[in-house]
This record gives sequence, structure tokens and C-alpha cells, in this order.
Amino acid sequence: MNRLSVEQFKAAEKLPLVVVLDNIRSLHNIGSVFRTADAFLLERIVLCGITACPPHPEMHKTALGAEFTVDWSYVNSTLEAVNNLRNEGYTVFSIEQAERSTMLDKLQLEPGKRYAIVMGNEVKGVQQEVIDASDGCIEIPQYGTKHSLNVSVTAGIVIWDISNKLRATS
Amino acid sequence: MNRLSVEQFKAAEKLPLVVVLDNIRSLHNIGSVFRTADAFLLERIVLCGITACPPHPEMHKTALGAEFTVDWSYVNSTLEAVNNLRNEGYTVFSIEQAERSTMLDKLQLEPGKRYAIVMGNEVKGVQQEVIDASDGCIEIPQYGTKHSLNVSVTAGIVIWDISNKLRATS
Repeated sequence: MNRLSVEQFKAAEKLPLVVVLDNIRSLHNIGSVFRTADAFLLERIVLCGITACPPHPEMHKTALGAEFTVDWSYVNSTLEAVNNLRNEGYTVFSIEQAERSTMLDKLQLEPGKRYAIVMGNEVKGVQQEVIDASDGCIEIPQYGTKHSLNVSVTAGIVIWDISNKLRATS
Repeated sequence: MNRLSVEQFKAAEKLPLVVVLDNIRSLHNIGSVFRTADAFLLERIVLCGITACPPHPEMHKTALGAEFTVDWSYVNSTLEAVNNLRNEGYTVFSIEQAERSTMLDKLQLEPGKRYAIVMGNEVKGVQQEVIDASDGCIEIPQYGTKHSLNVSVTAGIVIWDISNKLRATS
């Protein structure tokens, strides 16, 4: 496959998937999510709360330029961002371990629909009011001693899985 | 799902998957791979070349204790590590963009077989002699401007995908 130029990236048809970052503290994690969003041609990233916006030299170390290709916006309230997305017709999933979570490997997506995923703060996770406003929760099944993968790894796994499922049905 | 204690982790049946780290420079990446290997109950990590061994305070920041649960060994030569694994009956895949790569979404695994994946250096990738000694290469299909996800994100995606496929067939 050929690498896209920035102009080709901007013009390319995107995967109908938005990533919402709910108060992500680490600039490395934010940069990494930009890089992953570039790799899978995501529509947009919504930065919320304390999540830093580009440009930022520390973020650049992991984004490596993807902060200039992927569309992004900033909304202070994550709840407002989620409500906006739902009003625009997106199905919104919080990535969180919860009673009613769907395990990622069991997740089924509908062709033609648009999706958003919310990644939560490194320590506190996704805010409860944001979980409540979501259409559901997705959880990565884990079998070890920790049960909390790094935010950028979690985002990578969920974006890969959803990208795969959406491309298979399109 | 319940979190395992360290003793339960050590005693648990592991996924038949080994990760080989070929000269990984970043302690954050090494620590993150340990954390992911803990989450998916991997058999072992083989650290090669300049890849640092636990314990290390910088590695701990991303491993968060997984460096004490997941089995590991150190082999100076990555080529020797791969040859050893193949002699022990493992099918070894280098994670690399190459002419003959299998795209991860097309990868098929055989029930009952044991696998190893080689993650390469952040800049140089997997050494050519290691690629040549592998049974094949796996590539994550990417669509954006960069074509090189972060090592810890790449490891997360590949481990998730292989874990999923092995658990589905077991």
C-alpha cells in the first residue's frame, strides 16, 4: 500500500469512526492516538477537558506529524461532546469495564452506521455521566493480574478491531 | 472476570504465544509489552540485543508490575532466539512490512500449534537475517500518511488479534 500525502489524507474517504478523549493526561498517549487515527484513516478526534490540543512538542514525539493530518476539535465537556455526537447520529461506546459491557470480540457493528468511542482518563477512566450518556460500553477481555491496558494500547486494539469490522462490511 | 494473583498467574495455562523483542530501545515500549503480555496470559517474552531486562524503574512506569508476572529470558542474538524457538516447534512470524507479508486480518492460525512474534527496533525494524529465519511476516494494514504505528501499539494489536484467533479455535 502507498503512503498518502497530507493532501491525499485530507481528501480521502474516512472510516466513520470518531475517537473522544475524556481528560487524557499523558501527551504521549494523546500523540499515540493521533498516530493510530492516521494509520486507520479515522474521521476525527474530539479532545475534551484537560486533554491537550496540538501542536505540542511532547505530543509530537509519539504523533510524529499525525497531529497535523487527523481532523480534531476541542469540547470542554466530554458529556456535551457525546451528546453532540449522538444528536449527529453517531452510536457512542465508552471503552470501560462495566457490568453491561460488550466484550470487544463479541461486538457487532451495523454497516452504514457511524460510531464514536470514548477513551477515559488514565486513572479515573471514563466519567460515570459520560458512560450513562453512551449507547453502551466496550471492554477488552483480559486474563492477567492487571486488567487495565495502557490507554494508547487500548485505543489501538479497539480502533483496529472496529476498523476491521467496518471495512469487512463496507 | 477476576484478576489473577501473581501465584494464580504463574500457575495458569498460558496462551501458546511468545513475544521476541529484537533490540527495542524504549523502556516504555518494553514495559508496555510486558503489561499487554500479562493481560493476555502470554507464555513468555524473549529479550534480545540492547533490549533492557527487568527490573528497571523506567520500565516499571508502563509495566506496572507485569515485569514480575510474565516469564522472560534474555538471548543476546535475536537470530539465535528465533532459531531456538523454531527448533522447539514454534512457528515464528516477524512483524514487518515486507513483500511477502501476510496482512494481520487475513492471518490464519492452526489449532494446537505454538507461535512466536518478533517485534523490531523502533527505527530499524526487525533485522533482515531474523526476517529470513522466520516462517513469515505479518503486517498490520495501514491507510494513512505514516505506515508505522508505535511498537507498543503494534504489539497490542497483533497480540490481541492472535489471542482472539487462538482462543476461538481452542
